[in-house]
Amino acid sequence: MEFRVIKRCKSSKARLGEIVTDHGRLETPVFMPVGTAGAIKGISPEEAKDAGVEIILANTYHLYLRPGHELIEKLGGLHRFMNWSGPILTDSGGFQTLSLSKLRTISADGVTFRSHLDGSTHFLGPETVMEIQRTLGADIIMTLDECAPFGADPDYVHDSVKLTEQWARRCLEERKDNGQALFCVVQGGIYPKLREMSARGLVSMGFDGYALGGLSVGEDKHTRENIIRLTRKFLPEEKPVYLMGVGTTEDIIASVKMGVDMFDCVMPTRNARNGTLFTHKGKLIIKNAQYTDDSSPIEEGCGCYTCSNYSRAYLRHLFLSREILAYRLNTIHNLYYYAKLMSGIGQAIREDRLAEFSHDFYRGEAESL
Amino acid sequence: MEFRVIKRCKSSKARLGEIVTDHGRLETPVFMPVGTAGAIKGISPEEAKDAGVEIILANTYHLYLRPGHELIEKLGGLHRFMNWSGPILTDSGGFQTLSLSKLRTISADGVTFRSHLDGSTHFLGPETVMEIQRTLGADIIMTLDECAPFGADPDYVHDSVKLTEQWARRCLEERKDNGQALFCVVQGGIYPKLREMSARGLVSMGFDGYALGGLSVGEDKHTRENIIRLTRKFLPEEKPVYLMGVGTTEDIIASVKMGVDMFDCVMPTRNARNGTLFTHKGKLIIKNAQYTDDSSPIEEGCGCYTCSNYSRAYLRHLFLSREILAYRLNTIHNLYYYAKLMSGIGQAIREDRLAEFSHDFYRGEAESL
Repeated sequence: MEFRVIKRCKSSKARLGEIVTDHGRLETPVFMPVGTAGAIKGISPEEAKDAGVEIILANTYHLYLRPGHELIEKLGGLHRFMNWSGPILTDSGGFQTLSLSKLRTISADGVTFRSHLDGSTHFLGPETVMEIQRTLGADIIMTLDECAPFGADPDYVHDSVKLTEQWARRCLEERKDNGQALFCVVQGGIYPKLREMSARGLVSMGFDGYALGGLSVGEDKHTRENIIRLTRKFLPEEKPVYLMGVGTTEDIIASVKMGVDMFDCVMPTRNARNGTLFTHKGKLIIKNAQYTDDSSPIEEGCGCYTCSNYSRAYLRHLFLSREILAYRLNTIHNLYYYAKLMSGIGQAIREDRLAEFSHDFYRGEAESL
Repeated sequence: MEFRVIKRCKSSKARLGEIVTDHGRLETPVFMPVGTAGAIKGISPEEAKDAGVEIILANTYHLYLRPGHELIEKLGGLHRFMNWSGPILTDSGGFQTLSLSKLRTISADGVTFRSHLDGSTHFLGPETVMEIQRTLGADIIMTLDECAPFGADPDYVHDSVKLTEQWARRCLEERKDNGQALFCVVQGGIYPKLREMSARGLVSMGFDGYALGGLSVGEDKHTRENIIRLTRKFLPEEKPVYLMGVGTTEDIIASVKMGVDMFDCVMPTRNARNGTLFTHKGKLIIKNAQYTDDSSPIEEGCGCYTCSNYSRAYLRHLFLSREILAYRLNTIHNLYYYAKLMSGIGQAIREDRLAEFSHDFYRGEAESL
């Protein structure tokens, strides 16, 4: 994987960048939709591409449990298995042992957890997650980290940062010369000193990219932005920075301005399945009675497949009828909205007008969207 | 609507025909997938077209209850509402008052029933179903009929045939000069004399097409085929004949040979959602463990989108993971399979080799599929 900065914003830390992988090139800032179990829920790979998706995130935790990484390797790797020819990033699975597993025992060796599918006990260590991600064959893989629970005290988080650093080192040692880029995860909770310690320790080892973990887990927006801003200072300019699990369009724009290049979140896809659709004038709840006989598209001027072909009234009917097509049409729109946001941000950086773009966007008037 | 017979089979009553509607031309024998609530469950209109679907059936009962026919009319009619530009046939809703409603009271005026959605009481009479179908704007609409419950005695069925005939006459009187073709429904249960009476009565009134109702509701195959064969004799050669709710590929081939032109059934779509896939070597249950690491498509040589891009192993994984994409990919394959069967039958009639086609098909070796 190659990364280079194409242009820097004059009014902020934002930058327009380029990532080149064996499965294609993409521009940053980029949003990665989540394809948890080997599919972006509700849509096909072609639809993802048509909606502007350039790279997807797949979850190691889920794929390890079902159908199993060895099976996927046997079938030619994750790209081929799921028919997605573009870049893929896999996470390490560490976060899901916190968010999904009922049991989670952490030792120096790794994490023991219970499958949310059948309750069976499993172990993920640094070496395991490297092996799993090698077999899946993603373009970008992640080191195992410990994401401390929200509210953990400084002593706990300190130890967690140290453990994350040790695991990152062990992942680095397991690294193969197979073209996969390896990103590490900066932890440290809401504690500036611990974030600095985590960043410095990881940067000294040298990774292809740096992720910020443990954010958007319960902290307020002000705290989150402070942590992003100060942590970013300790990360190298020549490497991509990835804010994990974020997020809202507002959070994305604010984070881009602080120098973040990559994002992932279930928000556009999950909201779509819940009938919440993004527009530049705010969220649209498709089941609301006001759309009963509304012949307009979700958003006038939107170029997505859904808005080009279907009315709000039809989408409301499909959603209320629980038609499978509802989830798909909604997902296409929300992913297109996010992709357009990201390309709009990129274009604004290129043209030295990110401040105006951001201002207009918050006013709900970004013409380029 | 225009119908003409292009070619007659030399070895059976089968015929190759053509139906021309305001929304396009199609060849018979044709299979109509069911788009109950304004969508073929799981797929888009473009996918249906790509899979070879030429005409779809939509259910008046469902659309009347939700979102309501007046709403659909206001939004430009059913074609526009659901973004399907090809021909549509709507049924009268009568059958669903039998199969879905908990209450069903029949009088000379029509049927009173309870909505399966919210228990509310509704009434459908001949005039009502004509008005509903006029507003929906389908290319082919159906008269209201009474489908007698399976096992009904001759006296009941006799009265049912008479009522169906009266309702058909009232539908004919309500007919507008708006280009919609009107089909009636021959009833009579498993009783040859009553089928003959029903057919003669309806044919004397003159409809654009004749449907056979009340079959595939519990009777055995032998009885069904006898009823189709004898009823067909009383229907005019110059009009299309439509066997409602049928069915299996075997039933379709057998019925085509008896002179049936049109079919509809939920089988390919419902089976797809249940993970049962059609192949020329029999049904494939995708969840079965034998497909765990099977890298081959559902069927080698199948040209559908699913078989062109995905392995059995992936489809099994999606199905077990309850991914939305599973239902869609399965549905595309099954509809393609049915469409290929129908075009194969048509080609065989054209080339005077329906007997061979049928023989090969049953042996699971039809090369043209």
